[in-house]
Amino acid sequence: MTVKQLSLPELVDACRDLGVPAVGLWREPVQAYGVEAAAKLVRDAGLTVTTLCRGGFLTAIDLAERAAALADNRRAVDEAAALGTDTLVLVSGGLPAGSKDLRGARERIADALAELGPYAEEHGVRLAIEPLHPMYASDRCVVSTLAQALDLAERFPARQVGVTVDTYHVWWDDTAPAQIARAGAQDRIHAFQLADWTTPLPEGVLNGRGQIGDGSVDMREWQGYVEAAGYTGAIEVELFNDVLWARDGRELLAETARRFVEHTA
Amino acid sequence: MTVKQLSLPELVDACRDLGVPAVGLWREPVQAYGVEAAAKLVRDAGLTVTTLCRGGFLTAIDLAERAAALADNRRAVDEAAALGTDTLVLVSGGLPAGSKDLRGARERIADALAELGPYAEEHGVRLAIEPLHPMYASDRCVVSTLAQALDLAERFPARQVGVTVDTYHVWWDDTAPAQIARAGAQDRIHAFQLADWTTPLPEGVLNGRGQIGDGSVDMREWQGYVEAAGYTGAIEVELFNDVLWARDGRELLAETARRFVEHTA
Repeated sequence: MTVKQLSLPELVDACRDLGVPAVGLWREPVQAYGVEAAAKLVRDAGLTVTTLCRGGFLTAIDLAERAAALADNRRAVDEAAALGTDTLVLVSGGLPAGSKDLRGARERIADALAELGPYAEEHGVRLAIEPLHPMYASDRCVVSTLAQALDLAERFPARQVGVTVDTYHVWWDDTAPAQIARAGAQDRIHAFQLADWTTPLPEGVLNGRGQIGDGSVDMREWQGYVEAAGYTGAIEVELFNDVLWARDGRELLAETARRFVEHTA
Repeated sequence: MTVKQLSLPELVDACRDLGVPAVGLWREPVQAYGVEAAAKLVRDAGLTVTTLCRGGFLTAIDLAERAAALADNRRAVDEAAALGTDTLVLVSGGLPAGSKDLRGARERIADALAELGPYAEEHGVRLAIEPLHPMYASDRCVVSTLAQALDLAERFPARQVGVTVDTYHVWWDDTAPAQIARAGAQDRIHAFQLADWTTPLPEGVLNGRGQIGDGSVDMREWQGYVEAAGYTGAIEVELFNDVLWARDGRELLAETARRFVEHTA
Protein backbone atom coordinates (compact mmCIF):
# COMPACT_ATOMS: atom_id res chain seq x y z
CA MET A 1 0.00 0.00 0.00
CA THR A 2 3.02 2.25 0.57
CA VAL A 3 3.53 2.26 -3.19
CA LYS A 4 0.05 1.55 -4.45
CA GLN A 5 0.90 3.45 -7.64
CA LEU A 6 2.88 0.33 -8.65
CA SER A 7 1.16 -2.72 -10.13
CA LEU A 8 1.95 -6.03 -8.45
CA PRO A 9 4.49 -7.01 -11.13
CA GLU A 10 6.12 -3.57 -10.89
CA LEU A 11 6.22 -3.93 -7.11
CA VAL A 12 7.86 -7.33 -7.33
CA ASP A 13 10.44 -6.01 -9.79
CA ALA A 14 11.19 -3.00 -7.60
CA CYS A 15 11.58 -5.15 -4.49
CA ARG A 16 14.00 -7.41 -6.35
CA ASP A 17 16.03 -4.47 -7.62
CA LEU A 18 16.21 -2.92 -4.15
CA GLY A 19 16.91 -6.14 -2.27
CA VAL A 20 13.65 -5.90 -0.32
CA PRO A 21 13.11 -9.53 0.72
CA ALA A 22 9.51 -9.45 1.92
CA VAL A 23 6.30 -7.56 1.30
CA GLY A 24 2.95 -7.03 2.97
CA LEU A 25 0.05 -7.19 0.54
CA TRP A 26 -3.46 -5.78 0.53
CA ARG A 27 -6.47 -7.71 -0.54
CA GLU A 28 -7.83 -5.39 -3.21
CA PRO A 29 -4.82 -5.39 -5.57
CA VAL A 30 -4.32 -9.11 -4.94
CA GLN A 31 -7.93 -9.85 -5.83
CA ALA A 32 -7.73 -7.65 -8.91
CA TYR A 33 -4.62 -9.49 -10.10
CA GLY A 34 -5.98 -12.88 -9.08
CA VAL A 35 -5.05 -14.55 -5.81
CA GLU A 36 -3.35 -17.58 -7.34
CA ALA A 37 -1.55 -15.47 -9.92
CA ALA A 38 -0.34 -13.07 -7.22
CA ALA A 39 0.84 -15.99 -5.10
CA LYS A 40 2.80 -17.38 -8.05
CA LEU A 41 4.22 -13.95 -8.89
CA VAL A 42 5.70 -13.35 -5.44
CA ARG A 43 6.74 -16.99 -5.00
CA ASP A 44 8.58 -17.05 -8.31
CA ALA A 45 10.39 -13.85 -7.34
CA GLY A 46 11.49 -15.35 -4.03
CA LEU A 47 9.56 -12.71 -2.09
CA THR A 48 8.09 -13.57 1.28
CA VAL A 49 4.60 -12.24 2.02
CA THR A 50 4.72 -10.87 5.57
CA THR A 51 1.04 -10.14 6.14
CA LEU A 52 -2.22 -9.75 4.29
CA CYS A 53 -4.18 -6.58 5.04
CA ARG A 54 -6.92 -6.69 5.91
CA GLY A 55 -9.80 -8.54 7.40
CA GLY A 56 -12.05 -7.24 10.10
CA PHE A 57 -14.99 -4.80 10.06
CA LEU A 58 -16.76 -7.02 12.53
CA THR A 59 -18.90 -4.52 14.44
CA ALA A 60 -22.19 -4.64 12.54
CA ILE A 61 -25.36 -5.29 14.52
CA ASP A 62 -27.49 -6.37 11.57
CA LEU A 63 -27.39 -10.15 11.27
CA ALA A 64 -27.09 -10.26 7.50
CA GLU A 65 -24.22 -7.77 7.64
CA ARG A 66 -22.54 -9.83 10.33
CA ALA A 67 -22.84 -13.01 8.29
CA ALA A 68 -21.44 -11.23 5.24
CA ALA A 69 -18.50 -9.91 7.28
CA LEU A 70 -17.71 -13.37 8.63
CA ALA A 71 -17.85 -14.86 5.15
CA ASP A 72 -15.56 -12.13 3.83
CA ASN A 73 -13.09 -12.75 6.64
CA ARG A 74 -13.04 -16.48 5.87
CA ARG A 75 -12.18 -15.54 2.28
CA ALA A 76 -9.42 -13.29 3.61
CA VAL A 77 -8.02 -16.23 5.59
CA ASP A 78 -8.12 -18.36 2.44
CA GLU A 79 -6.31 -15.63 0.51
CA ALA A 80 -3.64 -15.29 3.19
CA ALA A 81 -3.07 -19.04 3.12
CA ALA A 82 -2.86 -19.00 -0.68
CA LEU A 83 -0.27 -16.21 -0.56
CA GLY A 84 1.81 -18.16 1.92
CA THR A 85 1.59 -15.68 4.80
CA ASP A 86 0.65 -16.78 8.29
CA THR A 87 -0.78 -13.41 9.35
CA LEU A 88 -4.03 -11.66 8.50
CA VAL A 89 -4.24 -8.11 9.88
CA LEU A 90 -7.67 -7.12 11.22
CA VAL A 91 -9.09 -3.61 11.29
CA SER A 92 -12.00 -4.12 13.59
CA GLY A 93 -14.58 -1.68 12.28
CA GLY A 94 -16.27 1.43 13.62
CA LEU A 95 -19.57 2.18 15.27
CA PRO A 96 -22.66 1.14 13.30
CA ALA A 97 -24.69 4.10 12.02
CA GLY A 98 -26.45 5.82 14.89
CA SER A 99 -24.77 3.77 17.61
CA LYS A 100 -22.80 5.32 20.47
CA ASP A 101 -21.99 1.99 22.11
CA LEU A 102 -18.24 1.40 21.91
CA ARG A 103 -18.36 -1.39 24.48
CA GLY A 104 -21.03 -3.29 22.59
CA ALA A 105 -19.10 -2.94 19.34
CA ARG A 106 -15.97 -4.31 21.01
CA GLU A 107 -17.94 -7.30 22.31
CA ARG A 108 -19.22 -8.07 18.83
CA ILE A 109 -15.61 -8.28 17.64
CA ALA A 110 -14.98 -10.92 20.30
CA ASP A 111 -18.03 -12.83 19.12
CA ALA A 112 -16.70 -12.80 15.57
CA LEU A 113 -13.20 -13.85 16.64
CA ALA A 114 -14.69 -16.89 18.35
CA GLU A 115 -15.85 -18.03 14.93
CA LEU A 116 -12.89 -16.84 12.88
CA GLY A 117 -10.05 -17.91 15.18
CA PRO A 118 -10.52 -21.66 14.74
CA TYR A 119 -11.10 -21.25 11.01
CA ALA A 120 -7.88 -19.28 10.68
CA GLU A 121 -5.93 -21.83 12.73
CA GLU A 122 -7.14 -24.64 10.48
CA HIS A 123 -5.64 -22.73 7.56
CA GLY A 124 -2.35 -21.92 9.27
CA VAL A 125 -3.20 -18.22 9.63
CA ARG A 126 -3.06 -16.05 12.74
CA LEU A 127 -5.38 -13.07 13.16
CA ALA A 128 -3.64 -9.85 14.21
CA ILE A 129 -5.97 -7.26 15.74
CA GLU A 130 -4.60 -3.82 14.89
CA PRO A 131 -5.52 -1.08 17.31
CA LEU A 132 -5.99 2.06 15.24
CA HIS A 133 -5.33 5.57 16.48
CA PRO A 134 -8.24 6.90 18.58
CA MET A 135 -9.08 9.38 15.82
CA TYR A 136 -10.56 6.41 13.93
CA ALA A 137 -12.66 5.11 16.85
CA SER A 138 -16.05 6.07 15.43
CA ASP A 139 -15.73 5.28 11.75
CA ARG A 140 -13.03 2.68 11.29
CA CYS A 141 -11.85 0.87 14.39
CA VAL A 142 -13.34 0.82 17.89
CA VAL A 143 -10.16 -0.85 19.14
CA SER A 144 -7.96 2.15 19.91
CA THR A 145 -5.18 0.85 22.16
CA LEU A 146 -2.94 -2.17 22.51
CA ALA A 147 -4.52 -2.80 25.90
CA GLN A 148 -7.96 -3.10 24.31
CA ALA A 149 -6.61 -5.28 21.51
CA LEU A 150 -4.95 -7.62 24.02
CA ASP A 151 -8.06 -7.73 26.20
CA LEU A 152 -9.80 -9.12 23.12
CA ALA A 153 -6.96 -11.34 21.93
CA GLU A 154 -6.44 -12.97 25.32
CA ARG A 155 -9.80 -14.66 25.11
CA PHE A 156 -8.32 -16.86 22.40
CA PRO A 157 -5.15 -18.92 21.90
CA ALA A 158 -2.16 -16.89 20.71
CA ARG A 159 -1.85 -19.15 17.68
CA GLN A 160 -5.31 -17.89 16.64
CA VAL A 161 -5.39 -14.23 17.71
CA GLY A 162 -2.69 -11.67 18.43
CA VAL A 163 -2.06 -8.00 17.72
CA THR A 164 -0.42 -5.70 15.21
CA VAL A 165 1.84 -3.01 16.64
CA ASP A 166 1.87 0.01 14.32
CA THR A 167 3.92 2.99 15.42
CA TYR A 168 1.53 5.47 13.79
CA HIS A 169 -1.33 4.28 15.94
CA VAL A 170 0.39 3.83 19.31
CA TRP A 171 3.29 6.29 19.42
CA TRP A 172 1.43 8.78 21.65
CA ASP A 173 0.47 6.14 24.25
CA ASP A 174 2.68 5.99 27.32
CA THR A 175 1.11 2.66 28.30
CA ALA A 176 1.99 1.02 24.97
CA PRO A 177 5.50 -0.13 25.91
CA ALA A 178 4.12 -2.15 28.83
CA GLN A 179 1.41 -3.55 26.57
CA ILE A 180 4.02 -4.59 24.02
CA ALA A 181 5.79 -6.48 26.80
CA ARG A 182 2.46 -8.08 27.74
CA ALA A 183 1.87 -9.07 24.12
CA GLY A 184 5.36 -10.45 23.72
CA ALA A 185 5.17 -12.54 26.85
CA GLN A 186 2.13 -14.25 25.32
CA ASP A 187 3.65 -14.56 21.84
CA ARG A 188 0.94 -12.32 20.47
CA ILE A 189 2.94 -9.74 18.49
CA HIS A 190 1.94 -11.01 15.08
CA ALA A 191 2.95 -7.94 13.05
CA PHE A 192 4.99 -4.78 13.48
CA GLN A 193 4.48 -1.82 11.17
CA LEU A 194 6.19 1.54 10.88
CA ALA A 195 4.90 4.92 9.81
CA ASP A 196 5.81 8.34 11.09
CA TRP A 197 3.43 10.90 12.60
CA THR A 198 3.36 14.09 10.56
CA THR A 199 1.08 17.11 10.75
CA PRO A 200 -1.08 18.82 9.67
CA LEU A 201 -3.37 15.85 9.19
CA PRO A 202 -5.28 15.80 5.90
CA GLU A 203 -9.07 16.03 5.70
CA GLY A 204 -10.52 12.68 6.73
CA VAL A 205 -7.18 11.85 8.42
CA LEU A 206 -6.74 8.65 6.45
CA ASN A 207 -3.94 9.36 4.02
CA GLY A 208 -1.46 11.27 6.14
CA ARG A 209 0.87 8.51 7.33
CA GLY A 210 4.32 10.05 7.22
CA GLN A 211 7.51 8.79 5.62
CA ILE A 212 9.92 7.26 8.13
CA GLY A 213 12.02 10.03 9.62
CA ASP A 214 9.74 12.90 8.65
CA GLY A 215 7.78 13.08 11.90
CA SER A 216 7.62 12.66 15.66
CA VAL A 217 8.18 8.93 16.08
CA ASP A 218 11.48 7.45 17.26
CA MET A 219 11.48 4.23 15.21
CA ARG A 220 14.42 2.65 17.03
CA GLU A 221 12.65 3.17 20.35
CA TRP A 222 9.61 1.17 19.19
CA GLN A 223 11.72 -1.43 17.45
CA GLY A 224 13.51 -1.79 20.79
CA TYR A 225 10.21 -2.39 22.60
CA VAL A 226 9.01 -5.15 20.28
CA GLU A 227 12.42 -6.81 20.09
CA ALA A 228 12.81 -6.69 23.88
CA ALA A 229 9.42 -8.41 23.98
CA GLY A 230 10.81 -11.22 21.86
CA TYR A 231 9.59 -10.21 18.42
CA THR A 232 11.78 -11.55 15.63
CA GLY A 233 9.39 -11.16 12.69
CA ALA A 234 9.38 -8.77 9.79
CA ILE A 235 9.24 -5.01 10.16
CA GLU A 236 6.81 -3.56 7.64
CA VAL A 237 6.64 0.03 6.47
CA GLU A 238 3.06 1.04 5.76
CA LEU A 239 2.44 4.53 4.44
CA PHE A 240 -0.83 5.82 3.08
CA ASN A 241 -0.20 9.28 1.87
CA ASP A 242 -1.68 11.12 -1.06
CA VAL A 243 1.47 13.21 -1.48
CA LEU A 244 3.70 10.13 -1.54
CA TRP A 245 1.32 8.27 -3.86
CA ALA A 246 1.58 11.11 -6.36
CA ARG A 247 5.32 10.44 -6.73
CA ASP A 248 7.09 7.85 -8.85
CA GLY A 249 6.52 4.52 -7.13
CA ARG A 250 9.96 3.03 -7.65
CA GLU A 251 11.64 6.19 -6.44
CA LEU A 252 9.36 6.25 -3.37
CA LEU A 253 10.13 2.62 -2.59
CA ALA A 254 13.86 3.32 -2.88
CA GLU A 255 13.53 6.32 -0.55
CA THR A 256 11.50 4.23 1.90
CA ALA A 257 14.16 1.51 1.90
CA ARG A 258 16.85 4.13 2.59
CA ARG A 259 14.82 5.65 5.40
CA PHE A 260 14.21 2.21 6.87
CA VAL A 261 17.95 1.52 7.01
CA GLU A 262 18.63 4.97 8.42
CA HIS A 263 16.01 4.88 11.18
CA THR A 264 15.99 1.27 12.35
CA ALA A 265 18.68 -0.70 14.11
CA MET B 1 -15.58 30.03 21.47
CA THR B 2 -18.68 28.03 20.49
CA VAL B 3 -20.11 31.26 19.07
CA LYS B 4 -16.99 33.21 18.32
CA GLN B 5 -18.89 35.04 15.57
CA LEU B 6 -20.56 37.02 18.38
CA SER B 7 -18.82 39.95 20.03
CA LEU B 8 -18.64 39.86 23.82
CA PRO B 9 -21.61 42.26 24.24
CA GLU B 10 -23.63 40.23 21.71
CA LEU B 11 -22.72 37.06 23.60
CA VAL B 12 -23.82 38.54 26.90
CA ASP B 13 -27.11 39.69 25.37
CA ALA B 14 -27.74 36.29 23.81
CA CYS B 15 -27.00 34.47 27.06
CA ARG B 16 -29.44 36.73 28.89
CA ASP B 17 -32.16 36.21 26.29
CA LEU B 18 -31.69 32.42 26.39
CA GLY B 19 -31.39 32.12 30.16
CA VAL B 20 -27.81 30.82 29.94
CA PRO B 21 -26.46 31.62 33.43
CA ALA B 22 -22.74 31.09 32.93
CA VAL B 23 -20.12 31.29 30.23
CA GLY B 24 -16.58 30.11 29.59
CA LEU B 25 -14.38 32.77 28.03
CA TRP B 26 -11.26 32.70 25.92
CA ARG B 27 -8.33 34.98 26.42
CA GLU B 28 -8.06 36.49 22.94
CA PRO B 29 -11.53 38.10 22.76
CA VAL B 30 -11.28 39.14 26.41
CA GLN B 31 -7.93 40.82 25.79
CA ALA B 32 -9.24 42.51 22.65
CA TYR B 33 -12.23 43.89 24.56
CA GLY B 34 -10.14 44.72 27.61
CA VAL B 35 -9.96 42.47 30.66
CA GLU B 36 -11.52 44.91 33.12
CA ALA B 37 -14.20 45.95 30.66
CA ALA B 38 -15.04 42.31 29.95
CA ALA B 39 -15.20 41.56 33.66
CA LYS B 40 -17.60 44.49 34.18
CA LEU B 41 -19.71 43.46 31.19
CA VAL B 42 -20.35 39.92 32.42
CA ARG B 43 -20.66 41.00 36.06
CA ASP B 44 -23.26 43.66 35.24
CA ALA B 45 -25.23 41.07 33.26
CA GLY B 46 -25.22 38.66 36.19
CA LEU B 47 -23.29 36.09 34.19
CA THR B 48 -20.89 33.73 35.95
CA VAL B 49 -17.58 33.04 34.21
CA THR B 50 -17.03 29.28 34.48
CA THR B 51 -13.47 29.03 33.14
CA LEU B 52 -10.89 31.00 31.25
CA CYS B 53 -9.32 29.21 28.27
CA ARG B 54 -6.46 28.90 28.03
CA GLY B 55 -3.06 28.89 29.56
CA GLY B 56 -0.42 26.28 28.94
CA PHE B 57 2.01 25.68 26.06
CA LEU B 58 4.66 24.78 28.58
CA THR B 59 6.80 22.31 26.63
CA ALA B 60 9.47 24.56 25.13
CA ILE B 61 13.11 23.62 25.72
CA ASP B 62 14.57 27.03 24.94
CA LEU B 63 14.99 28.98 28.17
CA ALA B 64 13.75 32.30 26.80
CA GLU B 65 10.67 30.60 25.39
CA ARG B 66 10.05 28.89 28.71
CA ALA B 67 10.33 32.18 30.60
CA ALA B 68 7.94 33.83 28.16
CA ALA B 69 5.45 30.98 28.56
CA LEU B 70 5.57 31.23 32.34
CA ALA B 71 5.06 34.99 32.19
CA ASP B 72 2.12 34.56 29.82
CA ASN B 73 0.57 31.99 32.12
CA ARG B 74 0.89 34.33 35.09
CA ARG B 75 -0.97 36.93 33.03
CA ALA B 76 -3.62 34.31 32.29
CA VAL B 77 -4.01 33.67 36.02
CA ASP B 78 -4.37 37.41 36.57
CA GLU B 79 -7.02 37.61 33.85
CA ALA B 80 -8.94 34.67 35.32
CA ALA B 81 -8.93 36.34 38.72
CA ALA B 82 -10.09 39.62 37.19
CA LEU B 83 -12.96 37.86 35.43
CA GLY B 84 -14.02 36.22 38.68
CA THR B 85 -13.49 32.63 37.62
CA ASP B 86 -11.54 30.19 39.76
CA THR B 87 -10.42 27.97 36.88
CA LEU B 88 -7.79 28.42 34.18
CA VAL B 89 -7.80 25.65 31.58
CA LEU B 90 -4.34 24.56 30.40
CA VAL B 91 -3.51 23.14 26.98
CA SER B 92 -0.07 21.81 27.66
CA GLY B 93 1.68 22.27 24.33
CA GLY B 94 3.15 19.93 21.73
CA LEU B 95 6.62 18.67 20.91
CA PRO B 96 9.24 21.36 20.25
CA ALA B 97 10.39 21.44 16.63
CA GLY B 98 12.51 18.41 15.84
CA SER B 99 11.91 16.69 19.18
CA LYS B 100 10.49 13.16 19.46
CA ASP B 101 10.65 13.12 23.27
CA LEU B 102 7.11 12.97 24.65
CA ARG B 103 8.30 11.99 28.11
CA GLY B 104 10.67 14.93 28.34
CA ALA B 105 7.97 17.32 27.19
CA ARG B 106 5.60 16.00 29.85
CA GLU B 107 8.27 16.52 32.51
CA ARG B 108 8.76 20.12 31.45
CA ILE B 109 5.04 20.68 32.05
CA ALA B 110 5.50 19.46 35.61
CA ASP B 111 8.43 21.83 36.05
CA ALA B 112 6.25 24.73 34.92
CA LEU B 113 3.35 23.72 37.14
CA ALA B 114 5.65 23.81 40.14
CA GLU B 115 6.09 27.52 39.44
CA LEU B 116 2.56 28.32 38.32
CA GLY B 117 0.58 26.35 40.89
CA PRO B 118 1.50 28.49 43.91
CA TYR B 119 1.05 31.68 41.87
CA ALA B 120 -2.40 30.55 40.83
CA GLU B 121 -3.36 29.60 44.37
CA GLU B 122 -2.33 33.04 45.62
CA HIS B 123 -4.79 34.51 43.13
CA GLY B 124 -7.63 32.12 43.93
CA VAL B 125 -7.29 30.28 40.63
CA ARG B 126 -6.98 26.53 40.00
CA LEU B 127 -5.12 25.19 36.99
CA ALA B 128 -7.02 22.55 35.03
CA ILE B 129 -4.81 20.38 32.78
CA GLU B 130 -6.86 19.38 29.76
CA PRO B 131 -5.81 16.15 28.09
CA LEU B 132 -6.35 16.62 24.40
CA HIS B 133 -7.22 13.86 21.97
CA PRO B 134 -4.13 11.86 20.94
CA MET B 135 -4.40 13.28 17.42
CA TYR B 136 -3.00 16.53 18.90
CA ALA B 137 -0.05 14.88 20.70
CA SER B 138 2.68 16.22 18.44
CA ASP B 139 1.59 19.75 17.70
CA ARG B 140 -0.70 20.92 20.49
CA CYS B 141 -0.77 18.83 23.64
CA VAL B 142 1.52 16.01 24.71
CA VAL B 143 -0.95 15.17 27.49
CA SER B 144 -3.33 12.79 25.73
CA THR B 145 -5.22 10.97 28.47
CA LEU B 146 -6.80 11.67 31.83
CA ALA B 147 -4.34 9.21 33.37
CA GLN B 148 -1.41 11.29 32.12
CA ALA B 149 -3.07 14.52 33.26
CA LEU B 150 -3.66 13.11 36.73
CA ASP B 151 -0.13 11.75 36.94
CA LEU B 152 0.98 15.35 36.47
CA ALA B 153 -1.68 16.96 38.64
CA GLU B 154 -1.08 14.63 41.59
CA ARG B 155 2.35 16.11 42.16
CA PHE B 156 0.58 19.26 43.36
CA PRO B 157 -2.24 20.13 45.74
CA ALA B 158 -5.71 19.78 44.21
CA ARG B 159 -6.42 23.42 45.04
CA GLN B 160 -3.58 24.29 42.66
CA VAL B 161 -3.79 21.72 39.85
CA GLY B 162 -6.59 19.51 38.56
CA VAL B 163 -7.93 18.38 35.22
CA THR B 164 -10.48 19.28 32.59
CA VAL B 165 -12.71 16.47 31.37
CA ASP B 166 -13.78 17.13 27.77
CA THR B 167 -15.93 14.49 26.11
CA TYR B 168 -14.43 15.20 22.69
CA HIS B 169 -10.97 14.28 23.88
CA VAL B 170 -11.71 11.26 26.08
CA TRP B 171 -14.84 9.59 24.70
CA TRP B 172 -12.90 6.79 22.96
CA ASP B 173 -10.91 5.86 26.09
CA ASP B 174 -12.25 2.88 28.03
CA THR B 175 -9.98 3.78 30.96
CA ALA B 176 -11.39 7.31 31.25
CA PRO B 177 -14.35 6.45 33.54
CA ALA B 178 -11.97 5.01 36.16
CA GLN B 179 -9.73 8.06 35.77
CA ILE B 180 -12.70 10.36 36.31
CA ALA B 181 -13.41 8.49 39.55
CA ARG B 182 -9.74 8.91 40.51
CA ALA B 183 -9.93 12.62 39.75
CA GLY B 184 -13.15 13.06 41.65
CA ALA B 185 -11.85 11.27 44.73
CA GLN B 186 -9.07 13.88 44.87
CA ASP B 187 -11.35 16.82 44.09
CA ARG B 188 -9.45 17.45 40.87
CA ILE B 189 -12.25 17.70 38.30
CA HIS B 190 -11.96 21.43 37.79
CA ALA B 191 -13.90 21.67 34.52
CA PHE B 192 -16.24 19.55 32.42
CA GLN B 193 -16.78 20.31 28.75
CA LEU B 194 -19.01 18.78 26.09
CA ALA B 195 -18.57 18.40 22.38
CA ASP B 196 -19.66 15.59 20.12
CA TRP B 197 -17.39 13.50 17.90
CA THR B 198 -18.33 13.85 14.26
CA THR B 199 -16.58 12.66 11.11
CA PRO B 200 -15.06 13.18 8.63
CA LEU B 201 -12.52 15.31 10.47
CA PRO B 202 -11.51 18.52 8.70
CA GLU B 203 -7.97 19.18 7.47
CA GLY B 204 -5.81 20.01 10.48
CA VAL B 205 -8.46 18.39 12.73
CA LEU B 206 -8.87 21.51 14.84
CA ASN B 207 -12.27 22.87 13.92
CA GLY B 208 -14.40 19.76 13.73
CA ARG B 209 -15.90 19.59 17.23
CA GLY B 210 -19.46 18.45 16.69
CA GLN B 211 -22.72 19.93 17.92
CA ILE B 212 -24.16 18.04 20.89
CA GLY B 213 -26.23 15.15 19.59
CA ASP B 214 -24.73 15.07 16.11
CA GLY B 215 -22.08 12.44 16.78
CA SER B 216 -20.91 9.35 18.65
CA VAL B 217 -20.77 10.58 22.23
CA ASP B 218 -23.40 9.71 24.84
CA MET B 219 -23.40 12.96 26.83
CA ARG B 220 -25.51 11.60 29.69
CA GLU B 221 -23.08 8.73 30.16
CA TRP B 222 -20.15 11.12 30.67
CA GLN B 223 -22.20 13.50 32.79
CA GLY B 224 -23.01 10.45 34.89
CA TYR B 225 -19.33 9.64 35.36
CA VAL B 226 -18.33 13.11 36.52
CA GLU B 227 -21.37 13.50 38.75
CA ALA B 228 -20.82 10.05 40.29
CA ALA B 229 -17.28 11.27 41.00
CA GLY B 230 -18.71 14.19 42.96
CA TYR B 231 -18.55 16.94 40.35
CA THR B 232 -21.13 19.65 40.94
CA GLY B 233 -19.66 22.43 38.81
CA ALA B 234 -20.75 23.90 35.51
CA ILE B 235 -21.10 21.90 32.33
CA GLU B 236 -19.63 23.84 29.44
CA VAL B 237 -20.30 23.28 25.76
CA GLU B 238 -17.22 24.02 23.69
CA LEU B 239 -17.51 23.69 19.92
CA PHE B 240 -14.93 24.80 17.42
CA ASN B 241 -16.38 24.21 14.05
CA ASP B 242 -15.98 26.18 10.86
CA VAL B 243 -19.41 25.11 9.64
CA LEU B 244 -21.08 26.22 12.88
CA TRP B 245 -19.10 29.47 12.97
CA ALA B 246 -20.43 30.34 9.52
CA ARG B 247 -23.98 30.38 10.90
CA ASP B 248 -25.81 33.13 12.75
CA GLY B 249 -24.32 33.22 16.23
CA ARG B 250 -27.52 33.80 18.18
CA GLU B 251 -29.30 31.03 16.31
CA LEU B 252 -26.36 28.69 16.95
CA LEU B 253 -26.34 29.52 20.64
CA ALA B 254 -30.08 28.86 20.84
CA GLU B 255 -29.64 25.52 19.08
CA THR B 256 -26.77 24.63 21.40
CA ALA B 257 -28.89 25.44 24.46
CA ARG B 258 -31.69 23.23 23.12
CA ARG B 259 -29.28 20.39 22.42
CA PHE B 260 -27.80 20.75 25.89
CA VAL B 261 -31.24 20.36 27.48
CA GLU B 262 -32.07 17.47 25.20
CA HIS B 263 -28.85 15.49 25.74
CA THR B 264 -27.98 16.09 29.39
CA ALA B 265 -29.80 15.02 32.52
